[in-house]
Amino acid sequence: MPGNTFGHLFRLTTWGESHGKAIGGVIDGCPAGIPLSEKDIQPDLDRRRPGQSNVTTARDEADQVEILSGVFEGKTTGTPISLIIFNKDQRSQDYDKIKDTFRKGHADETYQLKYGHRDYRGGGRASARETAMRVAGAAIAKKVIAQNSTTKIVAYTKQIGDLTYDKPNLDVIEQNSVRAADLDIAGKMKTAILAAKEAGDSLGATIEAQIIDCPIGLGEPVFDKFKADLAKAMLSINAVMGFEYGPGFDVVNLKGSENNEIEIGIYGGITNGKPITLRIALKPTASIKIEGRHDPCLAPRAVPVIEAMIWLTIADHYLRNLCT
Amino acid sequence: MPGNTFGHLFRLTTWGESHGKAIGGVIDGCPAGIPLSEKDIQPDLDRRRPGQSNVTTARDEADQVEILSGVFEGKTTGTPISLIIFNKDQRSQDYDKIKDTFRKGHADETYQLKYGHRDYRGGGRASARETAMRVAGAAIAKKVIAQNSTTKIVAYTKQIGDLTYDKPNLDVIEQNSVRAADLDIAGKMKTAILAAKEAGDSLGATIEAQIIDCPIGLGEPVFDKFKADLAKAMLSINAVMGFEYGPGFDVVNLKGSENNEIEIGIYGGITNGKPITLRIALKPTASIKIEGRHDPCLAPRAVPVIEAMIWLTIADHYLRNLCT
Amino acid sequence: MPGNTFGHLFRLTTWGESHGKAIGGVIDGCPAGIPLSEKDIQPDLDRRRPGQSNVTTARDEADQVEILSGVFEGKTTGTPISLIIFNKDQRSQDYDKIKDTFRKGHADETYQLKYGHRDYRGGGRASARETAMRVAGAAIAKKVIAQNSTTKIVAYTKQIGDLTYDKPNLDVIEQNSVRAADLDIAGKMKTAILAAKEAGDSLGATIEAQIIDCPIGLGEPVFDKFKADLAKAMLSINAVMGFEYGPGFDVVNLKGSENNEIEIGIYGGITNGKPITLRIALKPTASIKIEGRHDPCLAPRAVPVIEAMIWLTIADHYLRNLCT
Amino acid sequence: MPGNTFGHLFRLTTWGESHGKAIGGVIDGCPAGIPLSEKDIQPDLDRRRPGQSNVTTARDEADQVEILSGVFEGKTTGTPISLIIFNKDQRSQDYDKIKDTFRKGHADETYQLKYGHRDYRGGGRASARETAMRVAGAAIAKKVIAQNSTTKIVAYTKQIGDLTYDKPNLDVIEQNSVRAADLDIAGKMKTAILAAKEAGDSLGATIEAQIIDCPIGLGEPVFDKFKADLAKAMLSINAVMGFEYGPGFDVVNLKGSENNEIEIGIYGGITNGKPITLRIALKPTASIKIEGRHDPCLAPRAVPVIEAMIWLTIADHYLRNLCT
Repeated sequence: MPGNTFGHLFRLTTWGESHGKAIGGVIDGCPAGIPLSEKDIQPDLDRRRPGQSNVTTARDEADQVEILSGVFEGKTTGTPISLIIFNKDQRSQDYDKIKDTFRKGHADETYQLKYGHRDYRGGGRASARETAMRVAGAAIAKKVIAQNSTTKIVAYTKQIGDLTYDKPNLDVIEQNSVRAADLDIAGKMKTAILAAKEAGDSLGATIEAQIIDCPIGLGEPVFDKFKADLAKAMLSINAVMGFEYGPGFDVVNLKGSENNEIEIGIYGGITNGKPITLRIALKPTASIKIEGRHDPCLAPRAVPVIEAMIWLTIADHYLRNLCT
Repeated sequence: MPGNTFGHLFRLTTWGESHGKAIGGVIDGCPAGIPLSEKDIQPDLDRRRPGQSNVTTARDEADQVEILSGVFEGKTTGTPISLIIFNKDQRSQDYDKIKDTFRKGHADETYQLKYGHRDYRGGGRASARETAMRVAGAAIAKKVIAQNSTTKIVAYTKQIGDLTYDKPNLDVIEQNSVRAADLDIAGKMKTAILAAKEAGDSLGATIEAQIIDCPIGLGEPVFDKFKADLAKAMLSINAVMGFEYGPGFDVVNLKGSENNEIEIGIYGGITNGKPITLRIALKPTASIKIEGRHDPCLAPRAVPVIEAMIWLTIADHYLRNLCT
Repeated sequence: MPGNTFGHLFRLTTWGESHGKAIGGVIDGCPAGIPLSEKDIQPDLDRRRPGQSNVTTARDEADQVEILSGVFEGKTTGTPISLIIFNKDQRSQDYDKIKDTFRKGHADETYQLKYGHRDYRGGGRASARETAMRVAGAAIAKKVIAQNSTTKIVAYTKQIGDLTYDKPNLDVIEQNSVRAADLDIAGKMKTAILAAKEAGDSLGATIEAQIIDCPIGLGEPVFDKFKADLAKAMLSINAVMGFEYGPGFDVVNLKGSENNEIEIGIYGGITNGKPITLRIALKPTASIKIEGRHDPCLAPRAVPVIEAMIWLTIADHYLRNLCT
Repeated sequence: MPGNTFGHLFRLTTWGESHGKAIGGVIDGCPAGIPLSEKDIQPDLDRRRPGQSNVTTARDEADQVEILSGVFEGKTTGTPISLIIFNKDQRSQDYDKIKDTFRKGHADETYQLKYGHRDYRGGGRASARETAMRVAGAAIAKKVIAQNSTTKIVAYTKQIGDLTYDKPNLDVIEQNSVRAADLDIAGKMKTAILAAKEAGDSLGATIEAQIIDCPIGLGEPVFDKFKADLAKAMLSINAVMGFEYGPGFDVVNLKGSENNEIEIGIYGGITNGKPITLRIALKPTASIKIEGRHDPCLAPRAVPVIEAMIWLTIADHYLRNLCT
């Protein structure tokens, strides 16, 4: 059973391989009458695109998105919205040498085991390149929610090695290339990443996200709790190794009397409108040394992808909650 | 859109409130011809039932399961399997006082916000009582997988406060009431739980699980990765605050060159048959002090529920993978 | 992939075999706050139950329904509603002789081919007995729609052999045992059915249904058109061999200029609130001669089942349309 | 809830408007390793394309399909297959006059009622143009089935007005522009269609289809019976007003003893491998007189669409049956 669709009522289906002709996505379930053009989507893609700085991969993709359907005279029509980005910089010759090699820590072997035939160029379908379409789809999700709510989502690099900080300053995130919410630590993180890059290595990270003014009543117990679908959304991203919200794993040190005092924004799997804080663990890029171009730390470009998956989760649950 | 069904091809729908007439579940998608009777299910329910020891709630439920359909002459027929447990010990008078109160850390308020009308007795649908049906459904999932694979799943209480251990001894888990995989630490955990109970308080915990001989090829990229559906399964459980697998959040301290050496059992979202280790964070019971009977630490009874949700995830993905 | 669930947002899952302990259904997705008790359901079941007259089967089932969950203090809570009917008159000894026989025109052989193991008693899962739960679920669907709309659905036996009529009189349907909308023709139909019964044979029929005051905007193009899901609903009933709406197959004789003048209530797959007329073809019971008790003509008891499936389709599409 | 996806395991999502930049489709769930190129798809599209003869619309579209993903080195990879056809002959100026008019018998008004904003050019999303992608997707479905089975599907124009015939000759269908299975009647049908065209009118029709060597065991009772999903597939096509299989509506004239002798290929909703015959009713084009270019009779171009929807239904149920 195929797995390239996210969501039930606000539904994103993505397609495309790293080095194919194009990548794309279809949004089905976007309400009609919402103003939409490529200009609403491109800025988010620009935050995710490669080649933004020396802490990201050198692959050069403009990632110019085009809307092919579902919008008429500047507004959505309630019909499927088809998005496409043609691949430019494919350089598939870089990858010929991995044709018959299974790279450590990659999906090469498991795709071969499962499908028996795979597009090995640049990771093919398993490449993080597909997340561009998650970001594009989420830009539309964001507009849906903005019609009805002041919801804000902001993610940032929280930790790399033992570099971390306590009080995130949300205003500085886009001012530094690692997208940390602390300029001082950001500088140190950048130094660490460049050192790893120099050594042909890569670094893991933690990303934190805040959901502010989340619509109330999202989540469909007992299985489709909001926290459950958030966790799925996060773990559906390639390098994510863990998810926690509220106190998360620190809860092991808390008593009920202490924990009950902490507001976590989701109870019984349903949102109550209070802020939600979540964190995810991001493994270091497996593509190290000589294997094609890569990001020495995934965090800076993962930040908009994390935000995107949260937006998609919220939009789907927002529509689901309309029917309760 | 309703959320009481888990899985797509091996599908469990549960129903029932804590203090209603009964709770139940319907399994749709179980292959035909599998030997099945109540005796295959009851032992797993007995591991989850309340009143097993002094570290669990005193509510007395035999949790006797009955199969109402889908089995004929001792074998499944491929039609829906209906399971039911009639509620015995309801004592709903205990809960009258919370009729108009929203208990801290509970689902009382969010259910009211979302639905406008709720069964407040014992948490109603939000009670962990519904997990009995997850355990019952999983007993069937386990039999499906056992037809084709030697898969084994074992979970255990890994940490409470700072009490933890390095090398789990899987043989001793059922020998101690906290279900730890280390008898020495188990004793200390028990002491800590009883102290919290005495103080009218509760404790958080970490549970670890191992999947051994997982079928190869499970997981449907890019969204329904095996790790994504595992995360959803775990976070769909009431008190779970976090999920991680492999090195999990510790990955923040790893370089790519180090991390690539660690076998994690899932690449590109697809299983490769190697062992998978995962951990979840369990918050301390919110029901403390005088509010009805409760578990002073959820871990001992959560262990079989964690295992159950993993079985359900595997069974669903096992069937999904047949169509690839 | 299992097929025992109907609907996406208003979702009915049924279970149970003809001669098992019980049959049941779970409604997931019913909005909260709707007044509901067994008294809302039983009258519809009574219209479908066997043994109502000499033109229906002699099997004696009270079909007493019980609500096990999802209703609290007389109102729905938004959680799954579990319905159960315990089987009374099972007489499974009647069916022992068909254990190893595939009856002509029945599902015996195909169930054996597909599942390899089946409950042969009384048709097992393939028995029309499962439609009782469709009727029960639809009684709830009807209450959901009644909150918001004056929708009325009425079905009647339109033709048996060459006995038919032009102007249906909706007031007389429940006054005659064949449920025709014309008392004169009803009498002749009854005579024909009794003659067939006497001869150990059975008769086919056409049933017509009218949907009046259907909510506007139902239907989700391009695949989930309202007419498409109606057709599926109808053909999901055991003996139904055909579906048509508006002029239906007579359209072969119409020119565009003529057909454009006929109001059919659904355009582009979406309802416009105008009346919808549909018809289904019902094959004669395959169970003839000595094979257990049976209905000599399915039409009288099929009428409430046809209505039920229309209600379920409308309720699901009503909720779906809330998200557009 | 959106409705632009057909199927569950072999899943086609279509997008695009009649006069937008392009139309497209995404197939998710196609097994890996199947040889596939545009050459496998184009011939079926050519059978459906406009401008084939003087009995079809004069709109000139080459309908050249391009595969954008999911195929590598000539074989499917198990990842989504994205198909696109860029629109050529748009002439949207023809349609400006209908901007504020609701054409009789069309979807103009219902789309406006449901969505509040629509692409009115050429019917927008409601145009039969979207069926091109059904035909393209079905060409892939056909290749999936061909790996495992000798299944053959053939449809033909069976009746226009009172012009019909008894013994279809499957060899002559592609030899005549109306796609009838009788050359003599085909000539008369053509004359009738041209006369209607001359008069600025259009004609209804009946199409019959045969499924030969259908895989055994398809269909998932009780709701997703094979006949139910066939009916849905057929009624999901714009102009289809009715569906019947086997004796269909003629069953009203049959006794059980007669009907039991007729082999219909589906029992209990499950296929038994015997031939299945079905018929659908096709209304005359609503676009008559001056309203843009149109087909004077939809039958010739509907034939490949009917076949396509049957292939899609079979492919989905074929995969579903693998999990039983």
